[in-house]
Amino acid sequence: MALAEADTTALEAQLRRRMERLYPLCRSLTGDGVRQTLAILADDLPATHPLEVRRVPSGSHVFDWTVPPEWNARAAWIADATSGERLIDLADHTLHLVSYSVPFSGRLDRAELEPHLHSLPDRPDQIPYRTSYYARDWGFCLSQRQRDGLGRGPFDVVVDTTLTEGDEGGELVYGEVLLPGEDPDAGEVLISSHLCHPSLANDNLSGLSVAIELASRIGARRHRLSYRFVLAPGTIGSLTWLAEHPGVRPRHLLVLTGLGGGGPLVYKRTRRGGQAIDRAAEHVVGRRAGRIIDYSPYGYDERQYNALGFDLPAGRLTRTPHGEYPEYHTSADDLGFVHDDELVEAMTAIEEILEVLEGDATYRNLSPYGEPQLGKRGLYPKMGGRSADDAVMAMLWLMACSDGETSVLSIAERAGLPFGVLRKAADDLLGAGLLG
Amino acid sequence: MALAEADTTALEAQLRRRMERLYPLCRSLTGDGVRQTLAILADDLPATHPLEVRRVPSGSHVFDWTVPPEWNARAAWIADATSGERLIDLADHTLHLVSYSVPFSGRLDRAELEPHLHSLPDRPDQIPYRTSYYARDWGFCLSQRQRDGLGRGPFDVVVDTTLTEGDEGGELVYGEVLLPGEDPDAGEVLISSHLCHPSLANDNLSGLSVAIELASRIGARRHRLSYRFVLAPGTIGSLTWLAEHPGVRPRHLLVLTGLGGGGPLVYKRTRRGGQAIDRAAEHVVGRRAGRIIDYSPYGYDERQYNALGFDLPAGRLTRTPHGEYPEYHTSADDLGFVHDDELVEAMTAIEEILEVLEGDATYRNLSPYGEPQLGKRGLYPKMGGRSADDAVMAMLWLMACSDGETSVLSIAERAGLPFGVLRKAADDLLGAGLLG
Amino acid sequence: MALAEADTTALEAQLRRRMERLYPLCRSLTGDGVRQTLAILADDLPATHPLEVRRVPSGSHVFDWTVPPEWNARAAWIADATSGERLIDLADHTLHLVSYSVPFSGRLDRAELEPHLHSLPDRPDQIPYRTSYYARDWGFCLSQRQRDGLGRGPFDVVVDTTLTEGDEGGELVYGEVLLPGEDPDAGEVLISSHLCHPSLANDNLSGLSVAIELASRIGARRHRLSYRFVLAPGTIGSLTWLAEHPGVRPRHLLVLTGLGGGGPLVYKRTRRGGQAIDRAAEHVVGRRAGRIIDYSPYGYDERQYNALGFDLPAGRLTRTPHGEYPEYHTSADDLGFVHDDELVEAMTAIEEILEVLEGDATYRNLSPYGEPQLGKRGLYPKMGGRSADDAVMAMLWLMACSDGETSVLSIAERAGLPFGVLRKAADDLLGAGLLG
Repeated sequence: MALAEADTTALEAQLRRRMERLYPLCRSLTGDGVRQTLAILADDLPATHPLEVRRVPSGSHVFDWTVPPEWNARAAWIADATSGERLIDLADHTLHLVSYSVPFSGRLDRAELEPHLHSLPDRPDQIPYRTSYYARDWGFCLSQRQRDGLGRGPFDVVVDTTLTEGDEGGELVYGEVLLPGEDPDAGEVLISSHLCHPSLANDNLSGLSVAIELASRIGARRHRLSYRFVLAPGTIGSLTWLAEHPGVRPRHLLVLTGLGGGGPLVYKRTRRGGQAIDRAAEHVVGRRAGRIIDYSPYGYDERQYNALGFDLPAGRLTRTPHGEYPEYHTSADDLGFVHDDELVEAMTAIEEILEVLEGDATYRNLSPYGEPQLGKRGLYPKMGGRSADDAVMAMLWLMACSDGETSVLSIAERAGLPFGVLRKAADDLLGAGLLG
Repeated sequence: MALAEADTTALEAQLRRRMERLYPLCRSLTGDGVRQTLAILADDLPATHPLEVRRVPSGSHVFDWTVPPEWNARAAWIADATSGERLIDLADHTLHLVSYSVPFSGRLDRAELEPHLHSLPDRPDQIPYRTSYYARDWGFCLSQRQRDGLGRGPFDVVVDTTLTEGDEGGELVYGEVLLPGEDPDAGEVLISSHLCHPSLANDNLSGLSVAIELASRIGARRHRLSYRFVLAPGTIGSLTWLAEHPGVRPRHLLVLTGLGGGGPLVYKRTRRGGQAIDRAAEHVVGRRAGRIIDYSPYGYDERQYNALGFDLPAGRLTRTPHGEYPEYHTSADDLGFVHDDELVEAMTAIEEILEVLEGDATYRNLSPYGEPQLGKRGLYPKMGGRSADDAVMAMLWLMACSDGETSVLSIAERAGLPFGVLRKAADDLLGAGLLG
Repeated sequence: MALAEADTTALEAQLRRRMERLYPLCRSLTGDGVRQTLAILADDLPATHPLEVRRVPSGSHVFDWTVPPEWNARAAWIADATSGERLIDLADHTLHLVSYSVPFSGRLDRAELEPHLHSLPDRPDQIPYRTSYYARDWGFCLSQRQRDGLGRGPFDVVVDTTLTEGDEGGELVYGEVLLPGEDPDAGEVLISSHLCHPSLANDNLSGLSVAIELASRIGARRHRLSYRFVLAPGTIGSLTWLAEHPGVRPRHLLVLTGLGGGGPLVYKRTRRGGQAIDRAAEHVVGRRAGRIIDYSPYGYDERQYNALGFDLPAGRLTRTPHGEYPEYHTSADDLGFVHDDELVEAMTAIEEILEVLEGDATYRNLSPYGEPQLGKRGLYPKMGGRSADDAVMAMLWLMACSDGETSVLSIAERAGLPFGVLRKAADDLLGAGLLG
């Protein structure tokens, strides 16, 4: 599944351009930032498989949770009350305002302002990312240097936000793309990426950009499996999707996020482990010198899909797991933090994982009494005495192990060869009537 | 289960004082030394759960064995026949006389004496420990330096011992402490420590001193499980207990000995492995950077409890396994060889193991459709964006894995967190109605 | 199973002498070289268990294969057409002619000759080994130095070979030795070694020489199991044996080859793994610091026996696996490449493996209530206080684990002791009535 160089360049540009358009928007669990993001993502999909926007009213009950009021921020600043100078302003960076801050307006001295400020003393130039979704409060995030230079006040503070629900409207929106497969019984792959973080490039935008690209590419080719992309705010968004689709049981789920930022690919197993998505991803990520980590109930939306009541096999692919890099949840997670080649490798790995899910199968050796004479079928080098190459080894392994129960992927793992080489050999042997 | 500093100091003094009283006594499989030891141990237990002394006549059949005659040593020495000077004297060190030496009195030259002498050429200052329980013989143990300086003789040798059985009396005695638990169906924990070695501090007294301390502490608190302490001579003592209690089937057994002497804690698995005592001890000892070793049929009384006919799950906790330290079974295993902090750590580890046995349980997640909203129950930090702490992680793990079959200990192992943290989180979730 | 020094010397001489007689012959899949080889091998077996020669006509169908025409080479050379000097001559080295070359005679210039030449540029002094069994062609193998010095030609080329089948005769021959065991129900061990390579010492002759020695030694002693040795050309030979013996299901199979050439012993597992031959060989080879490798469908005749349709548990013992040493399939695999002590160690290891297959059994502890008193049966050292030796440990392990289901080999593995020590201890305990 290696891409030609020209394709790689075009792909890098496409992934980058999408992130650049999305970066400035002020996203949260709900609100116009989410709507604008979905509109941009929709731009890159054809009418044959559009991005569909789902809406759920604020206040709806979703299992143990309630859809929060819709939150929008018109403006927010801290100004020097004497000079009128705006010292911290949402207009400068979407991270400056604590997400879901309630409206406020007033004059405060420094001591009164302090509990509402958030900074990182050990990373003095970065603005942290903070939210207060479920506790009614307001606050500002700023770099430690900004905080040190604020002065003693007094300050005029404006938090011009709205929290809407009930008769006033208010809703949660999320996006969904559906790609029905050729074999309705083959099951569905659900690819999920969270959409709720403001100007953070790796932790959010990298996953969204790659997901839309995948949807576009899969839609343009034949595929046995069905695919569904869910692009929704974290936790409440995936729970809402789960609540609204009680009859849908995706067979393989993959959560995407943090696909840039350096380091190898990291696949996080499903809660149960040993599922088809685990075996496919461990094969691919393992061969790419990536890391395989066990499930833990902290992270992204895999924790909802894997919850005991749903019991859906959701793995997760990242390059930089949450909390494991210093730029995490700070303004340093910007567009420069995500490199184009990282996204292309991640996408290639995902395509390889899907290739396994699409192509794995079990066969039976139809000529099981000793090794068949591959030579007379043109499948073996003519001159004896030298070692076998990967293609011949793949055929020998398939003939040795195809007992009607052992899958091509299992044989690839035992052979230490890439799935693709085994798949190709299986097709050759099927053509020669040696497998069935 | 960390102890406050004052408690630690008091505990150290208590454990030390008991060993100092026990050290000078001449113990063997039977005899007055055993009776005196049991009397000292009994001193530290209250009347509500006393140490009970059991007696079995010499000559009784115990499975494949016979209770040996009662052995007592009044005196034993090697004197220079010319000067009358006592060169080696049981009164100087209990190790000087081979245990179960038969009576003897006579004048011998050096060549006649030699076969009855035991020393360690490569550790010239140490007196070895030797026994001759089942072969009728007599002998003296001495340091190589003493041996080299004995001279050519002749020697007057006196072994003034008695071996009593039949009409003359003679018996084997051992001690037992019983602490009935609140839940009679919850089963019994048997803690066993051998009591038969003379002045050896680590290999014997460390286990006895800690065992009595545990009995005292457990007796002073509430406990669901029942506890039984068996303090008996090695091999024949535990076999006698087994023969006398055919209906008792302890659910968890732990043999204690060698808890000082340097090195990490070492837990030796039961013969079958994977038993509840194994899982509890491996969790605790593993987290304390201790060693886990497999069962082998050599060692202490675990080899009797684990024997095929009884099939009782007996693990063993030591710090210094038999034979693996140069002081083993020599006079260098003295009171200075056992350090107070080692005994306190061993006791703390045992208390943690018992905490697991007392508190492990399986629960069912009562809010399984996605992660419950811990925040609205006051169980989650209010401000989002930062990493979770152990207490929150413990709750998430319990909710993720409590399927009615997976125990709190299993979840602690998977989470990589101490059992105690998980147990506390389970109690919080039970209180919030999220587990049941 | 260590051999006395005199036995070792005699054995080394015997193994060496046989290889020296076999080395000069021009072997291939069929032909006189195979017949002569079988005759030499037969010399070393007594009339009570002779080597029997089996014959199958060329053209016979063998599963997916056909027995090839019988090939014989009378002469073959490349001569300088001008001087008449023979530059490359089969008479100088059997490797010079590509095996199964078809007859040819003619005058060629260098360009015409080139496609028929095979050499190794990176090993300029070695002649490679090449075959063309199933593609009709002819060719010469020569060292790169010889090739560089051939000159521009023209050359007179003679390949005086015959390929015989049908009415002209032509057959495949192979050898078999049968040694019926004392217990007809105990099953059969099949030991297989390929016989088709020309002057290659390690890859072929080492296996044949050891196999005949084993047949001779086993035939001279009592054995419970039956033994069968199959000495046949690679692939087509073992397939022919399989086709001709549909009712024979050997219980343990071992392929022997490459037993010299340096490096540790290497045991290759059966396709299924975990079979009795695997457990026996892994125990023996592991204790000799050898390597255990997993099955792969490339190699020697184990790939035929293990094929799905036959499903026979064939392991393989080599010292130098095919393709993993630079001398492989070149003229450097000569008599000097195989050392006598390597063959003796390999033979000793095979004898130890057979000792396990012959002697493994499960017993039941007849005195299971605690450790039996070994001392009163003379099975335990008299003086207590010291560590146990291997013989005592072996008895304790057998008493601890003999539950009627756990085999002596399993107990040896758990104990970390050689099978032979456990087997001896089991015999002692059987004699004492403690096992049954």
